[in-house]
Formats: sequence, structure tokens, C-alpha cells
Amino acid sequence: MNIRPLGDRVVIKRVEAEETTKSGIVLPGASKEKPQEAEVIAVGPGGVVDGKEIKMEVKVGDRVLFSKYSGNEIKFEGEELIILRQNDILAVIEK
Amino acid sequence: MNIRPLGDRVVIKRVEAEETTKSGIVLPGASKEKPQEAEVIAVGPGGVVDGKEIKMEVKVGDRVLFSKYSGNEIKFEGEELIILRQNDILAVIEK
Amino acid sequence: MNIRPLGDRVVIKRVEAEETTKSGIVLPGASKEKPQEAEVIAVGPGGVVDGKEIKMEVKVGDRVLFSKYSGNEIKFEGEELIILRQNDILAVIEK
Amino acid sequence: MNIRPLGDRVVIKRVEAEETTKSGIVLPGASKEKPQEAEVIAVGPGGVVDGKEIKMEVKVGDRVLFSKYSGNEIKFEGEELIILRQNDILAVIEK
Amino acid sequence: MNIRPLGDRVVIKRVEAEETTKSGIVLPGASKEKPQEAEVIAVGPGGVVDGKEIKMEVKVGDRVLFSKYSGNEIKFEGEELIILRQNDILAVIEK
Amino acid sequence: MNIRPLGDRVVIKRVEAEETTKSGIVLPGASKEKPQEAEVIAVGPGGVVDGKEIKMEVKVGDRVLFSKYSGNEIKFEGEELIILRQNDILAVIEK
Amino acid sequence: MNIRPLGDRVVIKRVEAEETTKSGIVLPGASKEKPQEAEVIAVGPGGVVDGKEIKMEVKVGDRVLFSKYSGNEIKFEGEELIILRQNDILAVIEK
Repeated sequence: MNIRPLGDRVVIKRVEAEETTKSGIVLPGASKEKPQEAEVIAVGPGGVVDGKEIKMEVKVGDRVLFSKYSGNEIKFEGEELIILRQNDILAVIEK
Repeated sequence: MNIRPLGDRVVIKRVEAEETTKSGIVLPGASKEKPQEAEVIAVGPGGVVDGKEIKMEVKVGDRVLFSKYSGNEIKFEGEELIILRQNDILAVIEK
Repeated sequence: MNIRPLGDRVVIKRVEAEETTKSGIVLPGASKEKPQEAEVIAVGPGGVVDGKEIKMEVKVGDRVLFSKYSGNEIKFEGEELIILRQNDILAVIEK
Repeated sequence: MNIRPLGDRVVIKRVEAEETTKSGIVLPGASKEKPQEAEVIAVGPGGVVDGKEIKMEVKVGDRVLFSKYSGNEIKFEGEELIILRQNDILAVIEK
Repeated sequence: MNIRPLGDRVVIKRVEAEETTKSGIVLPGASKEKPQEAEVIAVGPGGVVDGKEIKMEVKVGDRVLFSKYSGNEIKFEGEELIILRQNDILAVIEK
Repeated sequence: MNIRPLGDRVVIKRVEAEETTKSGIVLPGASKEKPQEAEVIAVGPGGVVDGKEIKMEVKVGDRVLFSKYSGNEIKFEGEELIILRQNDILAVIEK
Repeated sequence: MNIRPLGDRVVIKRVEAEETTKSGIVLPGASKEKPQEAEVIAVGPGGVVDGKEIKMEVKVGDRVLFSKYSGNEIKFEGEELIILRQNDILAVIEK
């Protein structure tokens, strides 16, 4: 089974961010807040959404930072996913 | 009797999502929250809605995920249906 | 006396929906909530409303489902009517 | 003295609606709520209002139904008037 | 010193409205509410304001009715003035 | 160091308005409310801001009246400044 | 690792503003409020964002003043960053 998001929507899945302290020690994500880092699972086709031309700028596999409280939480095949608009994705993390 | 939704509206009917755990066991939908998975029952013609050209991208029979609390709940011929705008449909599930 | 709605407005009158149970028994509308089914009494001319071109898609005599709490309740010649925008009509019921 | 409303505004004056019961008896307006029926006293020129072309569709002397709570109540030369936008006029009553 | 309002703004000064009762007696404004009648003191140039072309339709010296609670109260050279957008002026009173 | 405001923003600095009573006595600003009179310190370039063409109409050194509570208060080099959009400037005071 | 902001977003990092008193003494930032001065860390590509053409006017390394409470706070590689829209940047500080 596959999720095909409509319009400018993107399906993402939270990932635990690893934090590196200034001295170089890596701390696995243990903050109490839910992480705002995610992996892109599926990307809508874009096009004219709500009367505006939207070009999709993220792709499957991208690591992204997203706006807290945005989007819809969905449980799908045992996994917790978030479906949000591309506009709620703040940045792509490049390695 | 038939329901013919106007503009960009879509008539859907909730379905119980089956959940598969990571170990492969299938759990029939038993969550306390109302499911956000639905089947498309009828689709409006689209066209210019509220001054914007809308192209319908779902069709009758599609399985969809929709935004919680969106749309209007309607009781029609003994069935509980939801009429919402296509824009409140998050994704199509493909099998 | 006649009511001529302006712009994209539609005058409707609530009707009691008959409910059919799955076993085929017809129950006359007896739900405590006010019904959301109505008959169209008068239809505005459409045209440019609030800067947007609106084409009227319902006609006098249509059975419609409408969005709860929308529109203005008016008492006219002893009858309770609702005047709403066509956009608050969700669907037409066809027989 | 005259009131010349600006843009798409209309000056109206409430009138007591006479209610006819189904059996044909005429009841003069005695409801506790303020009536929503009014006579048009003055009509603005229309034209481009808030960036949108507005064509005036009511004229002085028209009987109209208007949206409760809309507009501004004004006391002018001892009379209680309401100044509202044409868009808050729901319908014209024709005799 | 002069006030030159920007864009579609208008500077007005409240005036006490005289009320005429139906029997013809003139009552000087003594209502507890602040009057909504004013004299135009200065008028902005209009033009493109907030992306919309605005044509000024009031002029210095006009008597106007304005929307309660709209605009900004300013004390200038010992006088209480209001600066509002032309759109908050409801009507011009002509004598 | 200089502040270069972006888009249609303007940097202003509050000034104490002198009030002249009707009898001609000048009272230095002593009202408890913060004054709404200011001097323009820096002006953004205007241009297309939020999809709308904005032409700047104030210049450095102008005395302006501005809308209470609008803009952002900034402490810069020991001075309290306000950065607001030109649209929140109500009028220019000319001498 | 790099952060690549999408659309008209900008990644900034707060800096302590040094305050100079009128007598010329430099006070390192010690105000209780979080500083509103920041350094630009990364800049999105601009282009058509939400249907509007946005041209980016800040660049990496710029010192900027930004609107309090705007943007999203993000912890990234041990650093506290803010991702906001260029429109929430009030001004660039030039030296």
C-alpha cells in the first residue's frame, strides 16, 4: 500500500535528531519535545493549489525541519506519519 | 436517490482502517478516535470555485485520508456521510 | 409577494428528511437536531459577487443538503426560511 | 438634509413586517426581535469598492431583508437608520 | 502646522449633531454616546493603497457619518481629531 | 552604524508633542500615554512588498503621526526606536 | 551538515547586542528580554512563494533586527537557530 498525497502535500516521518555538543560529543535525541526533524516519505504533485502555482522542492528521502504543530498526524500501517503542506517545511538538511 | 455534491465538494464514508503491527499482525481498527480513512462516494464537478479553478483529483471508490474535524457530517438514507472540500483530503491510499 | 435574493444567495426551506434503515424501514425525520435537508424556494442571479464570477448551479424545487449554522433565518409570510450563499449548499439530492 | 452613502453602502430604515399565519390572519409585527425587513432610503453610487467593481442592485423605495447585526445604526434627524453594505442585503421583497 | 494624511486616510473632527424630534423640536446633541457625525479636516491623496486603486470621494468641509470605533484618535494642537480610512466613512450629509 | 529597513518599513523615533491650549498656552507633552508623534529616522526602499507595489511617501526627517500599538519597539545604540510599515503611518505634520 | 531553507525563509542566530549609552560607555547585552538582533546563517532561494514573487534582500553574514515572537526556534547541531520568513526581518544593520 502506498500514500499518494494530493496537491502540495508531503508525507513525512519524524526522526530523532542527534545533537552534537560543541566539544564534539554526540547525544542521541532525548529532548522531551517531539523532534521537528523528519524524513520525506511521499510528495504530492504540486501544480495549481488553491489558485496558486506550487512547485515541489522536496523529494522522497530528504531530511527536513518542519514547523511544530503544523500538519495532520496520521497512523498508517502501524507507523505515525505527518501529512503537511510543503509550505510548513522550513528547511532541508544537506549532508 | 443520489447525492450530487456542488463545486469542489466530495462525499466520503468513513472506513475502519486495519492496522498492521511491525511484526505483521493485522489489528482491525479499534482506536477510540474516529478513523480518518474513508471511501469516496461522490465527487463534485470542480470548475471555478470561489474564483479559483479547481481540478478534481479523486474519483468514486478511492480510499482517502482526510483532515480531522473538516467537512460536514450528514445522515443520508441511514448512513453517516461526510461532505468536505477536496482540499481537506490529504492523500489517496493506493494498493 | 416574492423574495428575490441578491447575488449568489439562495432561499431555502427546511424539509424533514425521511430516513431509511438498512433493513428498508422508512423512519420519518425525528432527530432532535434541525434537519439539514431543504427545498430551494428562490435563487439569486449570480454574476460577479465580491469580485468573483459565480454561476448558479441550483434551481427552484431542488432538494439540497446545506451546511449547519450557515445562512440567515428569516420569517417571511408565516414561514421559516433560510437565506444562504450557494457556497453553503453542499449537495443536491437527485431522485 | 440628505444622506449620500459612499461606495456600495445603502441607507435603510426598519419596517415592521406583517405576518400572515397559514390560516390567512394578518398579524402586525410583534416579535420581540428587531425586524430584519427594511425600506431603502438612499443608495451609494457603487463603482470600484475595496478593489472590486460593485454594481448597485437595490433602489430607493425597495423593501429588503437584511442580515441581522450587520451595518451601523445611525440616528439622523430623529430617525433610526442603518447604513450597511449592499452585500449585507439578503433579498428584495417584490409585491 | 498642517496634517497631511497618507494614502486613503481622512482627518475628521467630531461635531455635535442636532436632533430634531418628530414634532419639530431641535435638541442639541446630548446623547451619552460620542457623536458619529464629523467634519472633514484633511484628505489624503488616494492612489494605490494596499495594492488597490482608491479614489477619494470626500473633501475638506464635508459633513460625514462614520463608523463607530473606527480610526485612530489623535490629539493635535489641543484638538481631538480622528484619522480613519475613507472606507470607514459611511455617508456624506448634504444640506 | 546604520539601520537599513527592508521593504516598506520605516524607522521612527517618538517625540514629545507640544500641546497648545485654545487660549494659546503651550504645554510640553506631559500626557501619560506615550506620544504618537515621531520623527522619521530611516525609510525602506519600497518596491514589491507582499505582492503589492509600494511607493514610499515619507522621508527622513518628516514629523509623522502613527497608529498606536503598531510596529516593533527596538533598542538600538541606546535609543528607543520603532520599526513599522509605512501603512501604519497615519499622517505627516507639515510646518 | 547544512541547512537549506525553502522559499523565502531565512535561518538566523541571535547575537547579543552591545548597547552604547549616550555618554559613550559600551554595555554588553544584559537585558532580560531575548535580543532581537541576529546574524544571517542561510538564505532561501526566494522565487514564487505563496503565489507572490519574492526577491531575497538579505545575505549570509548580515546583521539583522527581527520581529519578536516570529519564526520557528530550532535546535540544530547544538545551536539555537531561528527560521523565519524574510518578511519578519525588519532591518539590516550596516556598519
